[in-house]
Amino acid sequence: MNIQTPYLLFLGDAPDPLAAKVARGICDWRPESAIGQLRLQGCNADLGLRDMDIAQAVAAGAKTLVVGVANRGGVIADGWIEILREALAQGMDIAAGLHNRLADVPTLKADADRLGRQLFDVRHPSTAFDVGSGAKRGGKRLLPVGTDCSCGKMYTALAIEKALRARGIKADFRATGQTGILVAGGGVCVDAVVADFISGAVEWLSPDNDDDHWDVVEGQGSLFHPSFAGVTTGLIHGAQPDALVLCHEPTRTHMRGLPDFPVPDMQACMDAVLRVADLTNPNARFVGIAVDTSKLAEQQALDYLQQTEQSLGLVTVDPVRTGVERLVDQMI
Amino acid sequence: MNIQTPYLLFLGDAPDPLAAKVARGICDWRPESAIGQLRLQGCNADLGLRDMDIAQAVAAGAKTLVVGVANRGGVIADGWIEILREALAQGMDIAAGLHNRLADVPTLKADADRLGRQLFDVRHPSTAFDVGSGAKRGGKRLLPVGTDCSCGKMYTALAIEKALRARGIKADFRATGQTGILVAGGGVCVDAVVADFISGAVEWLSPDNDDDHWDVVEGQGSLFHPSFAGVTTGLIHGAQPDALVLCHEPTRTHMRGLPDFPVPDMQACMDAVLRVADLTNPNARFVGIAVDTSKLAEQQALDYLQQTEQSLGLVTVDPVRTGVERLVDQMI
Repeated sequence: MNIQTPYLLFLGDAPDPLAAKVARGICDWRPESAIGQLRLQGCNADLGLRDMDIAQAVAAGAKTLVVGVANRGGVIADGWIEILREALAQGMDIAAGLHNRLADVPTLKADADRLGRQLFDVRHPSTAFDVGSGAKRGGKRLLPVGTDCSCGKMYTALAIEKALRARGIKADFRATGQTGILVAGGGVCVDAVVADFISGAVEWLSPDNDDDHWDVVEGQGSLFHPSFAGVTTGLIHGAQPDALVLCHEPTRTHMRGLPDFPVPDMQACMDAVLRVADLTNPNARFVGIAVDTSKLAEQQALDYLQQTEQSLGLVTVDPVRTGVERLVDQMI
Repeated sequence: MNIQTPYLLFLGDAPDPLAAKVARGICDWRPESAIGQLRLQGCNADLGLRDMDIAQAVAAGAKTLVVGVANRGGVIADGWIEILREALAQGMDIAAGLHNRLADVPTLKADADRLGRQLFDVRHPSTAFDVGSGAKRGGKRLLPVGTDCSCGKMYTALAIEKALRARGIKADFRATGQTGILVAGGGVCVDAVVADFISGAVEWLSPDNDDDHWDVVEGQGSLFHPSFAGVTTGLIHGAQPDALVLCHEPTRTHMRGLPDFPVPDMQACMDAVLRVADLTNPNARFVGIAVDTSKLAEQQALDYLQQTEQSLGLVTVDPVRTGVERLVDQMI
């Protein structure tokens, strides 16, 4: 999967800014790839990019229309089809991270086949992976892991990649989820891989590399989430991380979507991760903690970071509020 | 998936008895379902069943032709197609646990559609599962777990189901692999499920039940196998076992297929399993150990069982050599 940039970001009829968070992620992390936005009537999201129609975007050099909006159920809305077909007709590929596949819409599939365009359904892996081998690969790897799902793992990984590159250190973000893949232009949606191949897919995603190169692998799920811990386990084994960062959201009282499952203690979570990581990399270690303090007031947030750092003995940051430089200091 | 019995077991041109081990498993555990065998020229396997052609099997009441042979690569051999088509034409369904799908052979698919017959590709789940919820279900569950893959988990589960039923205790074997599914006539091949749904598939497979009912869930993989530990993790979380049995093969020096990964210490493996199991069932406990001593001489085997029982403080049996009664005593 190698999605051509730059992108025209399609926001559709997003009911609110949150519905366009995939497009927002691309704007934040790959601004050079985001050439413009296309909004339909009633769209309540705005990325501050130039509004373009298909013809304007093509003239500006856009190679791929990215569906940067998620609606309820992850379906491709009927009202989008005309625009998507126009994009294909005018020479663009289309990429989407929806549950439903672009390639399952007969008119889009027929147009793409006829015109020689590509439809990237990034949530659906198209590669045939091997099972994981556990063999040690060259290069270094960092993996953010979470006390829960959705507590900043992708953001942390992208911030660390950016900080490493700013220091002149070779680093690549390796996407394991749909938003990450659209940001990076490639990757594997590991939770959509057939279960036998989870660790093998991550080995494929993060291949042998130079000794001084860092792969910053996007984390998924949590060992303490009863829906997704299998994915997290295979991801840790496949990534064979040298460095780990614990991601945590301090106001959450229970695991996402599961009121009966409390969020684990941070130290207990790190202990469990290290026991799993030990199988494919006995030298794995935590370099720090990344807390999403967005729900706390400034002073409360800073106090929380300081207290966590003291009690757990690891550098503790909020990638948004304080940046990740102090984490990166611990990696090198 | 509800495969109709009795079966005609198709052994094809199996080069040796091991190639027909799926059929052998059905004969051993569901002899009442195995009405006959069909062997092609050159077949070197023999289950001791009556040899039948399709017409004879249909006359004897066979409902499903089961492809009970695995050849290299798990493909459907060209030389089998004529017989498989004849089975469909004469009224039988077909079931197979091969890597390649029956339904992907155009002539078989067309015949089945036209005649209203079913093709069961048991390795490929056809159900749309929910993600796991971790919610506690009624009934009791036993799960065999292994220090490695292929060390007797299916055999142990089937032996325990049989022993429970012989005592008049309600029990169902829940198959999670292709041979188990063909034995049981249903189940889910958990390593073929999309990764997001591993634990959810096992929750589906082993639903809420009577308080005095045991589900004996077939185990898969090992927490210490870097290719498959993700599957094992999701399986443990979905099964939420009350009782665990550790399966072990004492002559193995490394994890199956991976010379650089030693087989874990049995106690370390049980400790790791209990930490994982704790998430969805804090009352999970090991009731005993099942050792595959088939590669040891009789006295050596009995000594090994006794020493293991003493050093680990758990009832230790070989399901083949000594039976599982003493394990079952620990369950009730």
